[in-house]
Amino acid sequence: MTGKRVYIQEVATRDGFQNEAQFVDTDAKIALIDDLSTCGYAKIEVTSFTSPKAIPALCDAEAVMHRIARREGTVYTVLVPNVRGAERALSCGVDEVNLVMSVSESHNRTNLRMSREQSFAQLRDVIGVVKQTKVAINVSLSTAMGCPMEGDIAQEDVLGWTQRFADLGVHGVTLCDTTGMAYPSQVGALCAATRERFPALEVTLHFHNTRGMALANTLAALDVGVDRFDASLGGLGGCPYAPGATGNVCTEELVHMLELDGYDTGVDLSALLSASALLPGLIGHDVPSQLLKAGRRLDLHAMPCAACDGQPEQRAFVQEN
Amino acid sequence: MTGKRVYIQEVATRDGFQNEAQFVDTDAKIALIDDLSTCGYAKIEVTSFTSPKAIPALCDAEAVMHRIARREGTVYTVLVPNVRGAERALSCGVDEVNLVMSVSESHNRTNLRMSREQSFAQLRDVIGVVKQTKVAINVSLSTAMGCPMEGDIAQEDVLGWTQRFADLGVHGVTLCDTTGMAYPSQVGALCAATRERFPALEVTLHFHNTRGMALANTLAALDVGVDRFDASLGGLGGCPYAPGATGNVCTEELVHMLELDGYDTGVDLSALLSASALLPGLIGHDVPSQLLKAGRRLDLHAMPCAACDGQPEQRAFVQEN
Repeated sequence: MTGKRVYIQEVATRDGFQNEAQFVDTDAKIALIDDLSTCGYAKIEVTSFTSPKAIPALCDAEAVMHRIARREGTVYTVLVPNVRGAERALSCGVDEVNLVMSVSESHNRTNLRMSREQSFAQLRDVIGVVKQTKVAINVSLSTAMGCPMEGDIAQEDVLGWTQRFADLGVHGVTLCDTTGMAYPSQVGALCAATRERFPALEVTLHFHNTRGMALANTLAALDVGVDRFDASLGGLGGCPYAPGATGNVCTEELVHMLELDGYDTGVDLSALLSASALLPGLIGHDVPSQLLKAGRRLDLHAMPCAACDGQPEQRAFVQEN
Repeated sequence: MTGKRVYIQEVATRDGFQNEAQFVDTDAKIALIDDLSTCGYAKIEVTSFTSPKAIPALCDAEAVMHRIARREGTVYTVLVPNVRGAERALSCGVDEVNLVMSVSESHNRTNLRMSREQSFAQLRDVIGVVKQTKVAINVSLSTAMGCPMEGDIAQEDVLGWTQRFADLGVHGVTLCDTTGMAYPSQVGALCAATRERFPALEVTLHFHNTRGMALANTLAALDVGVDRFDASLGGLGGCPYAPGATGNVCTEELVHMLELDGYDTGVDLSALLSASALLPGLIGHDVPSQLLKAGRRLDLHAMPCAACDGQPEQRAFVQEN
């Protein structure tokens, strides 16, 4: 490939599964992650080292992390909420820990049950523990492009929280559009400002497709040089504020568009679609992926026989434009 | 508004309804179109003057065209397949006729049951009739960005068919991504070439969201100066090649993004969402619109009570990023 390299980070087995009512069996999780490992991702967010009481869906974090077959070239990251979680994660030999807090005070209290300052203090302790190892540290800033309770989030607030974590030595920051409030011109401005102020930070964009704009927002981020995106297989991961709306941007749709536009994602789209086709069987319902239904752009169709026999009243499709 | 003007053209009552199994009552159609007329569209494609046997869903074209309340400033256009349809349309005082054929031979034969040359000859006759009046003429070129049977369509083919219609004096051309095969870099290149070669033609883009790229493709078209887009309320209009996949780009999602990005669409988004909410009642099923489910970006939510009482095991949402 000669296209510009773009890094794709899969979050379905963490951000997706944590929202599912049906427990995905540990062996099935491991088999899926092993499938994903063959797809060529830059990073896979495997699971979350949270209290099993808080997120029963991911109660098998240790077993999963220990038993997956890790591929050279893929970074295996896990979500870690506190020092206890960090110790559990480190004991499994993770490549990276991903920390999370919200830029919005209301969302942080709703999502994590504490103030932002309490979250920051807790994550500072986690960073202190992890920095004693060679494990990388990323921080995900939720509601960076809007809060469903507070509305607009000032760009300066996002940059301010990024600064506080950069000062603690994290290697990367993920700007999360937690509930699909981002729009292209906002994304472009925020990404440009973040990259300008923090040239040494690895910047990831985490889009949700709640209002249909995830791929448009991706273009806006690419335009200002962002090259790292979270995405969820099948579009798994709902939005608690919009029942029935889609959640995370769908990995196969993201990769499909990027490859068509000439980017080198490193990801095997055919393998991705095969893995995505397994999801409904694992979670017990259909997934939002449009690409899984429609097939790739050049997955062609035969002409319907009725088109050849000239019977005007038996038209299969009429005047579709 | 000081933003750049973008023209929004509604196609739900034609391109959407023609695909519906349930007949929408004539009075209900008229009431919906009258609602849409208050929304501020640049153009509304009202119906199709096709054989009622071919498209029973639109058998009431005359009644609808005669009885809607037309708003100053909105162009009322109709699809016309042949001279008979043109005569019917002209008798109703339409502002514009919209002609349709495919750039792909296979799709033209499937969709219209004749060769492209037969279609062109038929449409040339229509143009001959309509040019005797002051009614405007637009031609919609289907499969301009890919054919579900033939695959890629050469840009030169699209420009060639555009040239043939430009030579006949049509005032506008619509480049249709009939089955959602367009991708951003392709859209940018095709739109730039079309605008450069035909500076006097009104150029419309007609996107389908079959593979999730409609809004991203819209950004690519805007980037090269295209300012006119077809869209379908609620995202109505399916894709016969991808059962269950979404069809036309959803008007409210398009307008929502454009307004956030500072464009002046002339369209009242609140009125649009109210009209879209009526669709399931008219057609008997849910519509693809994500915005109808999720609400506008700044339609805010109250903090859940559980967020305030500090009970860690009763979290409503946990570690959503």
